[in-house]
Amino acid sequence: MAAEHASALTAVECARRIREGLLTSEELVQACLERIRDTEPVVQAWTFLDEELALAQARAADERQCSGLPVGPLNGVPVGIKDIIDTADMPTENGTVLHQGRMPRDDAAVVARLRAAGAVILGKTVTTECAYYSPGKTRNPWNPDHTPGGSSSGSAAAVAATMVPLAVGSQTNGSTIRPGSFCGVYAFKPTHGLVPRTGVLKLSRTLDQVGLFARTLDDVALLAEEAAGHDPGDPDSRPRARIPFRALAAEEPPIPPLFAFIKTPYWDRTESETREAFAELAEALGGQVEEVDLFPSARAGWEWQQLVMEAEMAANLEREWETGRDRLSGPLRSLIERGREVRAVDYQRALRGIDDTAQSFDELFMERYDAILTPAVPGTAPRGLSSTGDPVFCSLWTLLGMPAISLPLMRGSNGLPIGVQLVGRRGFDSRLLRTARWLIDQVQAG
Amino acid sequence: MAAEHASALTAVECARRIREGLLTSEELVQACLERIRDTEPVVQAWTFLDEELALAQARAADERQCSGLPVGPLNGVPVGIKDIIDTADMPTENGTVLHQGRMPRDDAAVVARLRAAGAVILGKTVTTECAYYSPGKTRNPWNPDHTPGGSSSGSAAAVAATMVPLAVGSQTNGSTIRPGSFCGVYAFKPTHGLVPRTGVLKLSRTLDQVGLFARTLDDVALLAEEAAGHDPGDPDSRPRARIPFRALAAEEPPIPPLFAFIKTPYWDRTESETREAFAELAEALGGQVEEVDLFPSARAGWEWQQLVMEAEMAANLEREWETGRDRLSGPLRSLIERGREVRAVDYQRALRGIDDTAQSFDELFMERYDAILTPAVPGTAPRGLSSTGDPVFCSLWTLLGMPAISLPLMRGSNGLPIGVQLVGRRGFDSRLLRTARWLIDQVQAG
Repeated sequence: MAAEHASALTAVECARRIREGLLTSEELVQACLERIRDTEPVVQAWTFLDEELALAQARAADERQCSGLPVGPLNGVPVGIKDIIDTADMPTENGTVLHQGRMPRDDAAVVARLRAAGAVILGKTVTTECAYYSPGKTRNPWNPDHTPGGSSSGSAAAVAATMVPLAVGSQTNGSTIRPGSFCGVYAFKPTHGLVPRTGVLKLSRTLDQVGLFARTLDDVALLAEEAAGHDPGDPDSRPRARIPFRALAAEEPPIPPLFAFIKTPYWDRTESETREAFAELAEALGGQVEEVDLFPSARAGWEWQQLVMEAEMAANLEREWETGRDRLSGPLRSLIERGREVRAVDYQRALRGIDDTAQSFDELFMERYDAILTPAVPGTAPRGLSSTGDPVFCSLWTLLGMPAISLPLMRGSNGLPIGVQLVGRRGFDSRLLRTARWLIDQVQAG
Repeated sequence: MAAEHASALTAVECARRIREGLLTSEELVQACLERIRDTEPVVQAWTFLDEELALAQARAADERQCSGLPVGPLNGVPVGIKDIIDTADMPTENGTVLHQGRMPRDDAAVVARLRAAGAVILGKTVTTECAYYSPGKTRNPWNPDHTPGGSSSGSAAAVAATMVPLAVGSQTNGSTIRPGSFCGVYAFKPTHGLVPRTGVLKLSRTLDQVGLFARTLDDVALLAEEAAGHDPGDPDSRPRARIPFRALAAEEPPIPPLFAFIKTPYWDRTESETREAFAELAEALGGQVEEVDLFPSARAGWEWQQLVMEAEMAANLEREWETGRDRLSGPLRSLIERGREVRAVDYQRALRGIDDTAQSFDELFMERYDAILTPAVPGTAPRGLSSTGDPVFCSLWTLLGMPAISLPLMRGSNGLPIGVQLVGRRGFDSRLLRTARWLIDQVQAG
């Protein structure tokens, strides 16, 4: 395969070819940069990209490869990084004019982990303002008149447009699963705390989670394997053994998995073709799917998500609010204003509710189910760039810190993708990937 | 020694004699019950005591001892339990009429641990109302016209009056160190989370800590060894290896320890004889003591302690407030009312401040000092029973979750005890006990 097509390779394939001397990282990065030159004028996925810096990293990876020393599993593979995640050699502006030109002193923990695995940090991808509501410049690669979703807009679009095989984003409400669905890629938000958040713009300790994008499940697993790990700078990170995500995701389940199909109280927000597609999927899976009503206590989850997000963002963006609130967007200013009025007793009540509800879901899995099957989004990416779409099918799982993945298995009549979301038990991320693999195989065989 | 004097033995000595067949637990518990019959009419340390239940436990311990099976380090040794700590076989009323007759289903984790070590749970000791301000019936054994301190009033007084060698209490502000000082016993509040709080009345996740009382340092170490450990029901408890507190506390420090004498911004609240006693102590220790100013950021600690206590107690006592606020005392009602008005942003700012300040103290220890030397209380126990005294010299260390111990090394001109408080680095509890042992030896030799 000629180098100019290498940008469309999977990350697993790129890593293999580089390891085996069939491709250099420099060729691969050149191919990605060419692809970006072709598609970026329309897609607008990047907020910072220094070709020379990327190529220098690629050449360093090639040197490591030639040195005979052991190299990491991502050696020479380019990764896009959402611009709320610190990079020591590139600006990190958090999507707000208030942080224009900001140069972090250190790499975020997840960036440092990827670099240690040999990855080339290709550039910084577009985020909405402070990973909240107000969109950046990015367009949906499937149709530039449609939103790519947000807030990890650039990461999802760059992977979808084959500009880069892997990208990192984040999710505080629906910021990974939603753009992943709208852009038709695999989007994985691991269990809360599994990927450390040190050096990621802090909006909400309770809700913030790192998200991962790729074009195959195997690639997502490869990325998760390097991104997950302990960092003492994240108070919710815990020491744990390395998880061999790729090997575990590739295993055959001992018995066919059972899915709990949860429509949530917001099912009526789905478009009719989403409902039809889910009915067909459920029918095709037959006895492996059971519709499960959300238990009543979980219905407060959406309200808690909102309250915790407002209260914690108001606290974490206090400096921005104090020093530059006139340069924040209206929606962000309103959110902070609401957050500043939240009472500590209500905030604590919401936090308590999260713990209790998450435990109830643990029991749901222990008793019977392998994964929850639920929409990722109400339908295909909405037309227009003024909003990034509705996160309602993500909020609860984000709140509870449960691992979630969007699989690009459905398509709307307009040709745009719709994600199928699977949600797993907290801490059982590899099992979720294994179940996802099984579902993909079924759908592709059927 | 006749059994009737056994109540004055140390716990270590009791355990040894029982182990060696020189004393039965039944004789020991009988001796304690006799001592209680004699002194309880004045001291009023107990809120629940069932002699038959205590003796049945003692006989069971004696049977274990005779069975030839291995027995726990506390086999047959009686312990008093503050009445905010759940016991499955005795009521736990939390010092409020709202919980009158409340019978917990399970033992608190710390009670279960002590039972597993063979301890006899002798009875429940008096607490102030919900471990907050309003005193119970207990009087100071040194002079019944004086407060025993609170909120663990009964635990401190029962140990001081040789009714029981060991007792468990708690501290959310000054509830272990203060009554320990006023009653002239050893009072140890280990690092936050080291002793699990599962089954202890939850007032404040951030501030609540279990406290331990004994009449010797060796006994405190023995009790800590059995009380500390992991329980998954306490979100701040972590798995860790068993800490051999007794052996570590008995070790000689490699070089004489260096003390940071911190007067705090509240030094002018101390009585003149406390100031004199500290000046003498510092002089006797010579070069081993350096006066250290509290760094400015720590000065906000007292305000944070108040705000966090109000906000978290308001959240945790919400049901009591909703259903029975007219039967709460005025001070507790006012605290909850203040707590209900705290804003989530201010609450989060205080929590953030705690983390930062605690790290600064970690560095103080790393750089130079073995322990902080500071008063436990402003002076001897105040006359009168309407208040339990001033916790101001405890608040900061409680807030920061640092291990603290009150040593009964000073005496006021009225004959009542004054505690010397040593504070250690978080997680270095055994080193604090070793340093305390060194100080005691110096004072007793001097």
